[in-house]
Amino acid sequence: MIYMDNAAATRLDERIWEVMGPYFLDSYAVATSEFGHSMGLDAREALGNARTALAQKLGVTDKELVFTSGDTESSNMALKGVVRAQEKKGKHIVVSAIEDFPVLNSAKALERRGYKVTYLPVDADGMLNMEALKAALTKETVLVSVQQANQEIGTLQDLKAIGEIVHDAGALFHTDATHAFARVPTDYGRSPADLVTMSAHTIHGPKGVGGLLVKEGTPFSKWMDGGFQENNLRAGLENIPGIVGFAKAAELVTDEENERIRKMRDVLIDRLLSEVEDTMLNGHRTKRVPQNANVTFHYVEGESITLHLDMREIEVSTGSACFSRSLEASHVIMGIGGDHERAHGSIRYSLGRFNRIEEAQEVVEAMKDIVKRLREISPLKRGGK
Amino acid sequence: MIYMDNAAATRLDERIWEVMGPYFLDSYAVATSEFGHSMGLDAREALGNARTALAQKLGVTDKELVFTSGDTESSNMALKGVVRAQEKKGKHIVVSAIEDFPVLNSAKALERRGYKVTYLPVDADGMLNMEALKAALTKETVLVSVQQANQEIGTLQDLKAIGEIVHDAGALFHTDATHAFARVPTDYGRSPADLVTMSAHTIHGPKGVGGLLVKEGTPFSKWMDGGFQENNLRAGLENIPGIVGFAKAAELVTDEENERIRKMRDVLIDRLLSEVEDTMLNGHRTKRVPQNANVTFHYVEGESITLHLDMREIEVSTGSACFSRSLEASHVIMGIGGDHERAHGSIRYSLGRFNRIEEAQEVVEAMKDIVKRLREISPLKRGGK
Repeated sequence: MIYMDNAAATRLDERIWEVMGPYFLDSYAVATSEFGHSMGLDAREALGNARTALAQKLGVTDKELVFTSGDTESSNMALKGVVRAQEKKGKHIVVSAIEDFPVLNSAKALERRGYKVTYLPVDADGMLNMEALKAALTKETVLVSVQQANQEIGTLQDLKAIGEIVHDAGALFHTDATHAFARVPTDYGRSPADLVTMSAHTIHGPKGVGGLLVKEGTPFSKWMDGGFQENNLRAGLENIPGIVGFAKAAELVTDEENERIRKMRDVLIDRLLSEVEDTMLNGHRTKRVPQNANVTFHYVEGESITLHLDMREIEVSTGSACFSRSLEASHVIMGIGGDHERAHGSIRYSLGRFNRIEEAQEVVEAMKDIVKRLREISPLKRGGK
Repeated sequence: MIYMDNAAATRLDERIWEVMGPYFLDSYAVATSEFGHSMGLDAREALGNARTALAQKLGVTDKELVFTSGDTESSNMALKGVVRAQEKKGKHIVVSAIEDFPVLNSAKALERRGYKVTYLPVDADGMLNMEALKAALTKETVLVSVQQANQEIGTLQDLKAIGEIVHDAGALFHTDATHAFARVPTDYGRSPADLVTMSAHTIHGPKGVGGLLVKEGTPFSKWMDGGFQENNLRAGLENIPGIVGFAKAAELVTDEENERIRKMRDVLIDRLLSEVEDTMLNGHRTKRVPQNANVTFHYVEGESITLHLDMREIEVSTGSACFSRSLEASHVIMGIGGDHERAHGSIRYSLGRFNRIEEAQEVVEAMKDIVKRLREISPLKRGGK
């Protein structure tokens, strides 16, 4: 089997599994237990060590790292926590049109509650329209949420440039870094983002755990109420095994690995574009995360391609990982100027630690053959032929 | 080591660890992946099977069971999801004064946002004051949240009687069943509760996963926005290993086990009350979860007891598991008519699958000795002596 689907980058590394084990089975105490409790102290120490290691890697202080149940919670908490704390200032937020669903649908939920939301356009590569950003900002704007990397086409935004404009206008800046964090090493302490969403599963860590960076001084209203965990920013029993696994996952990502993944990805992009006719790359050619390739094969259905690849034991994705209604066209492909045909003829290859260069070569060969066969029987005729 | 602290009932059962393993390491695909994807289908099947097994055990339909990251999220989602959906009806909610923090602090958060909240008193055993409930309900009341079992003193409320009163008044009924679910077998399908909070960790399942039952037809506004998972009631990548572990945890709880735990608990209560002077039971003697004993030892500090027990390798709890500010008095002990001295002199024994009857006997002997010594040096003088 060759995995280049969403799951390729989400498979748990066995080394992470091993460090999580003891916190499931042995040091099982609740980290917030009162003092006078040896096991409670062990758990608290494990939590503290994981937090320090991850915070250091990200360039922030321990207090700025809040553990959550994943990127969906992190982004909900970021958007809803900031608007609640800034209600008196204004009720306008700004997001890009190609955000992932946790941000996009949180914005839509706020819109239904009376907030004004501006959805910013992106160019053909998926890069944010900076003039539109400047034009959108008003005194009422409390938050701008623009992702670091896109979930489908991998395009990387210029956080520094966006952050400067946002801060000049007196608003706060949230970025969904789920697909960029660790794969595109970033010093979030120096980045202008006030809030940063992350998730362990995208770097071979466990599912069900993520993080939100909340920089010191950021006006923030608690979203998940209950106990006083996570510096009183997020209630809920700490998922110690998950948090320990998250820190280990970040530790295991190296520059060398990211470079190795980038090379495999480049084989896919370069060979598919040059050896298969009527193809186009979705997303920016260079400003993109190393693990993502997204290619449109005109005149064929992506679903047909995935079925044929599956028969050859090759797994890839169409559309969005979070999107079960797969017959709806991708809002990302539409956002970069695509139409329904292009959206449905796009294949996303997600690479990870467990892929090898030979797999990339094999996938290209399979694609060439499958696309050729499908086009022979395709009802989607080519314009000029 | 003898564990009778919060952790006793939360230690992961190795059999659960074993069934979770494959979903971490092998069938790693995203359950919501599009069709044409073998591994995605495996994951979806595992998710479906876990949901069906757990729903059957709880007496509800698959669609009524929503998986979450734990009881804190479930209760936030229940309270905030219902009030949002009922905004036009009214802005009054009712909770008991001894609810756990996820419910209590969600209610307080809603109060700060302009909702009217009534905090209902309980009697000396922790049983809800039903007359106060009837008196509190108005046409504006949208939700009543009363726990099935208390987190500290284990008292079980009469869900049926409460539910009838609540429904007669046209309001919805949420119950936090975190500490009762499975340990007190309940057919939630027949129970009048419209929404029920649960958590896997209280029955030796994994941390970071829980559930919320949302009965069909319950007016409910989505709280966690993003993808369309969980029947479009809760967004976020499904934590398949956690969910599979949750279902297995529920499967492993048997009536025989609950009876065995109840007997150990009765040894603790009966011997401590009869063999140690100046003690009192907190919570109802019979209407209580089988795994809980909570005893006040007058004229000693609970913290001193836990420290001395810790030196003898016995772990118990004071206060609440979710409460890191352990010097604040328990709102539960205060709620049943206690004062600060009683709150700080209370010890909670939480029993689970891994406890043995010999441990209960040993703990009683240790308590007798420690309490005697502490009272000899205690500055807290007894009234008449």
